[in-house]
Amino acid sequence: MGNSLGNLYKLTTFGESHGPAIGGVIDGCPAGVELDLNKIQSELDRRKPGQSSITTQRKEPDQVKFLSGIFNGKTTGTSIGYIIENTNQRSKDYTHNTDVYRPSHADLTYDKKYGHRDYRGGGRSSARETANWIVGGAIARQFLKNIKISAYTSAVGNIFLDKDYTELDLNKTENNIVRCPDQATATQMIKRIEEIKKQGDTIGGVITCVIRNVPTGLGEPIFNKLQAELGKAMLSINAVKGFEYGSGFHGATMKGSEHNDIFNPDGTTLTNYSGGIQGGISNGMDVYFRVAFKPVATIMQEQPTINSKGEKTAIQGKGRHDPCVVPRAVPIVEALSAMVVADLFLQHRARNRD
Amino acid sequence: MGNSLGNLYKLTTFGESHGPAIGGVIDGCPAGVELDLNKIQSELDRRKPGQSSITTQRKEPDQVKFLSGIFNGKTTGTSIGYIIENTNQRSKDYTHNTDVYRPSHADLTYDKKYGHRDYRGGGRSSARETANWIVGGAIARQFLKNIKISAYTSAVGNIFLDKDYTELDLNKTENNIVRCPDQATATQMIKRIEEIKKQGDTIGGVITCVIRNVPTGLGEPIFNKLQAELGKAMLSINAVKGFEYGSGFHGATMKGSEHNDIFNPDGTTLTNYSGGIQGGISNGMDVYFRVAFKPVATIMQEQPTINSKGEKTAIQGKGRHDPCVVPRAVPIVEALSAMVVADLFLQHRARNRD
Amino acid sequence: MGNSLGNLYKLTTFGESHGPAIGGVIDGCPAGVELDLNKIQSELDRRKPGQSSITTQRKEPDQVKFLSGIFNGKTTGTSIGYIIENTNQRSKDYTHNTDVYRPSHADLTYDKKYGHRDYRGGGRSSARETANWIVGGAIARQFLKNIKISAYTSAVGNIFLDKDYTELDLNKTENNIVRCPDQATATQMIKRIEEIKKQGDTIGGVITCVIRNVPTGLGEPIFNKLQAELGKAMLSINAVKGFEYGSGFHGATMKGSEHNDIFNPDGTTLTNYSGGIQGGISNGMDVYFRVAFKPVATIMQEQPTINSKGEKTAIQGKGRHDPCVVPRAVPIVEALSAMVVADLFLQHRARNRD
Amino acid sequence: MGNSLGNLYKLTTFGESHGPAIGGVIDGCPAGVELDLNKIQSELDRRKPGQSSITTQRKEPDQVKFLSGIFNGKTTGTSIGYIIENTNQRSKDYTHNTDVYRPSHADLTYDKKYGHRDYRGGGRSSARETANWIVGGAIARQFLKNIKISAYTSAVGNIFLDKDYTELDLNKTENNIVRCPDQATATQMIKRIEEIKKQGDTIGGVITCVIRNVPTGLGEPIFNKLQAELGKAMLSINAVKGFEYGSGFHGATMKGSEHNDIFNPDGTTLTNYSGGIQGGISNGMDVYFRVAFKPVATIMQEQPTINSKGEKTAIQGKGRHDPCVVPRAVPIVEALSAMVVADLFLQHRARNRD
Repeated sequence: MGNSLGNLYKLTTFGESHGPAIGGVIDGCPAGVELDLNKIQSELDRRKPGQSSITTQRKEPDQVKFLSGIFNGKTTGTSIGYIIENTNQRSKDYTHNTDVYRPSHADLTYDKKYGHRDYRGGGRSSARETANWIVGGAIARQFLKNIKISAYTSAVGNIFLDKDYTELDLNKTENNIVRCPDQATATQMIKRIEEIKKQGDTIGGVITCVIRNVPTGLGEPIFNKLQAELGKAMLSINAVKGFEYGSGFHGATMKGSEHNDIFNPDGTTLTNYSGGIQGGISNGMDVYFRVAFKPVATIMQEQPTINSKGEKTAIQGKGRHDPCVVPRAVPIVEALSAMVVADLFLQHRARNRD
Repeated sequence: MGNSLGNLYKLTTFGESHGPAIGGVIDGCPAGVELDLNKIQSELDRRKPGQSSITTQRKEPDQVKFLSGIFNGKTTGTSIGYIIENTNQRSKDYTHNTDVYRPSHADLTYDKKYGHRDYRGGGRSSARETANWIVGGAIARQFLKNIKISAYTSAVGNIFLDKDYTELDLNKTENNIVRCPDQATATQMIKRIEEIKKQGDTIGGVITCVIRNVPTGLGEPIFNKLQAELGKAMLSINAVKGFEYGSGFHGATMKGSEHNDIFNPDGTTLTNYSGGIQGGISNGMDVYFRVAFKPVATIMQEQPTINSKGEKTAIQGKGRHDPCVVPRAVPIVEALSAMVVADLFLQHRARNRD
Repeated sequence: MGNSLGNLYKLTTFGESHGPAIGGVIDGCPAGVELDLNKIQSELDRRKPGQSSITTQRKEPDQVKFLSGIFNGKTTGTSIGYIIENTNQRSKDYTHNTDVYRPSHADLTYDKKYGHRDYRGGGRSSARETANWIVGGAIARQFLKNIKISAYTSAVGNIFLDKDYTELDLNKTENNIVRCPDQATATQMIKRIEEIKKQGDTIGGVITCVIRNVPTGLGEPIFNKLQAELGKAMLSINAVKGFEYGSGFHGATMKGSEHNDIFNPDGTTLTNYSGGIQGGISNGMDVYFRVAFKPVATIMQEQPTINSKGEKTAIQGKGRHDPCVVPRAVPIVEALSAMVVADLFLQHRARNRD
Repeated sequence: MGNSLGNLYKLTTFGESHGPAIGGVIDGCPAGVELDLNKIQSELDRRKPGQSSITTQRKEPDQVKFLSGIFNGKTTGTSIGYIIENTNQRSKDYTHNTDVYRPSHADLTYDKKYGHRDYRGGGRSSARETANWIVGGAIARQFLKNIKISAYTSAVGNIFLDKDYTELDLNKTENNIVRCPDQATATQMIKRIEEIKKQGDTIGGVITCVIRNVPTGLGEPIFNKLQAELGKAMLSINAVKGFEYGSGFHGATMKGSEHNDIFNPDGTTLTNYSGGIQGGISNGMDVYFRVAFKPVATIMQEQPTINSKGEKTAIQGKGRHDPCVVPRAVPIVEALSAMVVADLFLQHRARNRD
């Protein structure tokens, strides 16, 4: 278990970073969705390594190849299989890690859980898996035509974008390599990442995501609430340490008289501390949330560690890694959001005819 | 959809606050677990309304009645059905709400989603549902004998407990009505809630939860990571706005060289920014997380609102409600945690023989 | 696991024949379905023991009590909880069985699987569980207003109803206690059951079921084919040994040139060897199938057997049991069919808008 | 939905016969299973087209290519991805079918369900999909080392193998091309198929399957009974019209005093009408069942039919098709059985420690 996301729009994936390919199966996409395959590829390009000076310099084309479920440019309603070949896996980069447990990596836990693991590049725990999610999300977005999902970098380390999303022009997110729609802040963030990189270190950050035009009624009450499914999806990203929506942790400091969103006559609300969700169900307002990313565990500095026998040793990153994962995670957050919304959209539609 | 939590240890629930009873089915609890029914009831008592001066004054005995799956004091391995009768539903308290949408409640979203709703006490969206979770969690805890789950109130509004959980004696949590193990902070918190109550207002807060003795290997990689399942469960609680584990949002400001948890020779780590989880799998260290609660939406002050026709009206809470939901949510956080851990424990065991 | 049927229309059940009650949760029934509760009860009455001279003489009112999910006579779209109290469990009838494994019962397998079992009346393996299915099916039928599901007894032992369902008036099924719409055959069947009963023996039989007005398009290809879901549901009935649909086992003797169903211009077919299903998907023709029931294992004759220690002993049925389960199973087959069709109906609708 | 089989041992598939490849993901296979890849390929060879004079002459190597989840010859416990390239799809064979509904094929139902379909070779409804199942089953068999699954052809049209499986040497099944372990009957069956082929017609048949050494305790009571999961899997095979286990339809004619399996002191039974299953749970005796296959719908004779506009036309098979699907279905029945048993094995093990 553990390799599938979703119920009615379901992605099931496989793949290690150093095998021949990663890939997956998208089950449940309705028939007749016209697919622009270039758009899918361009989402993959937003995630791919080597895209800018502040990402890993590893180059990988990440070319998706569809194998089924699409005919004459449209989905057939049957399962969509695809693969993305691994073309630039330098296993040699990892031979020094065969028996060493990298700090804050999943080496030890995989060994304890499975006994037998593919140690090259983290095996299945590699963030390469997220390319699969981009494919699943890119198709979901084309199905959900009218729903607009926009994520952006809102913090890198201690550099915070101190503006509410409503004050920003989210069309500007792609204008810079850190994917922050506020250019002044972006410049600071990039500078910070470059410094960190020079130190052989890494840094965390925060992504904010806004989903507009969500129809009222999405989300199943009790255990498949919209926020719970979004949170679960985000917490599936390797480096994510926290999730908050609407007023979030700040809301915990507020009083009810401040926090309640007063209705306008049309059912919209004056404020949106609720983050577009009431009782787990979308209310038609913008859904928005923030996702915290820890710093990448692989650093270019030497660190003490142990091997599988419990012997002390040391390790220093030799692969090509990201100093800050956040810019490349922006399309990942969007993709996961799209899959969650598509899934809940189908669940809702199953029981509603109009 | 939406009324089940878990895969191998699964709770399926039903019930509205103003129907004859709530209840559920626990499917997947192994056979032969000796159950102390008094312990289950005492968990329900920790959650029940009317237990102290800072909770709602509504009194409800919340007596669980088991109907199946237990024989001669032990689980039989078949499904455990139970009900909790609703004895103190004062529907009259809600007749004034029939057609009014309460701000930051689920009235509008249920109406939009379902067209037809039980408006008494919020119907299915009522937090009364959480009594069901206590039952599911209390049985999970008895199955997971050696795993110790301890939640406590770590913030009420702006009153924060500024100590790490490792500095606290978590056996003291039940020593005061706000369920904060630091008595000095607890006193301040209680005072704050009493003030808020006097204002007819409500206040948010934060719960911290620590899970000790989690065996290494729990959590399924990719989409059923331990943190993702915990996060999903917590975000299913009505008032929850955020979830973070380990270093959480603070971790996003850190550098890799600071954040990485260096191994001791025995596989434990010097620090635990990871929160006991690597690659979605427990590493044997303490699992800990924080959950943010918004202020309760029902306040005793008059607020402007609308009815289902979009007409302006006003509303003022008349039922008996909590000024701060956090103290009563402590056992809920523990119960959900127990169910998540039991579920992942069984998933892991299915594939491991030793 | 094992206590839920369905995906989008899902029934989860609990209960032993000798506990206080059986019951369940129906999750996924759309909101706004007007429910005639008398019709649900009358389906239970068709199944209940003691209804005629050829069924067990045990009397049990089987009164369903709904606890949630219904408001002002209509479903709310949230989970429907219900219980059926066990009023006539004579545990004494079973005290002689505490440690004895009854031949062709589930005593040994439950003991081996669970170690600990409720031996009274078969515990969870009791056919009393099927009352739960009646409730789930009766609500599904009210949701599926236009789809007509008709099952009937088509064989008792070697007495076969040698007519195709198209030659029968299925409105006559309830005209006799054996539930065979052909009165002449019914008379023979009843006589046969009476003879068998006098011998202290039991006899098997066959039920045929016809589902009319199934919309084209129900059933998910590959692994959730309409016939696969129907077959699985039928094979969940304790005594069922076989399932065939359309041409069934006879079709295995035919040639393609005989078996192919030639189309009429309107898409209907001249013959219906397909049983209304092609590629797992309903084609608009009648769906029909046959279900084989073994003779009830509890007989009033003495049989040699063993106890849990492997010691030889003997046993003779002392409870009140059915000489032939088939007449009472007719509404069970219908109920399971209704749940399967409702589930696939919702699955189909999730992905189709028109 | 519809493209996954199993819960803890789960196969999810994709692919059309005329796309670049079919493939799938196996999720839940435990780590550390040593895989003999040649054995997997040899199972595929037993199913592949063109293997003998009585199968379709289409040649397809059906070479499986694993992409993940296997490292140094052993499973890693993560998802196993694989593809099988389509090398011999002659789409031209199907261009005449673009708009024609072939009788007793899924053309009309796919069109009605999806609106948009890949008409080449039946698209997703093609039996080519069964190659995927072989892969899933072949790995399950290597996991289930000690459990022996043996299927064989027990009828072709009206030629029946009139011997119980206990009278046969099931090691002889592969000695002839029709896969019947009784050589005299096999000769007749082959002759029959050759005649039918000469007529441009097709013929149905029956496969019997025996599973030995099933541990006691597999199968989840109520809705995931062993027989129900086996039946569902078998009814997923395109041409299957019926399933019976143990005494099957014949059991419906028997009396309880004849049908009950009397225990030996060791818990085995003198007879095995039960088919190795009581209450849905394996009892340690052989599990056996029979599966009925209709004749292949594509015949080389001209048949009247309609197109999607309801216009009358005629059709004659032009592709290379099987005159009788049964011999090639023998490994398919075994593969599905293996997946079902592996899944229930894991489900049982999740809750049992010894």
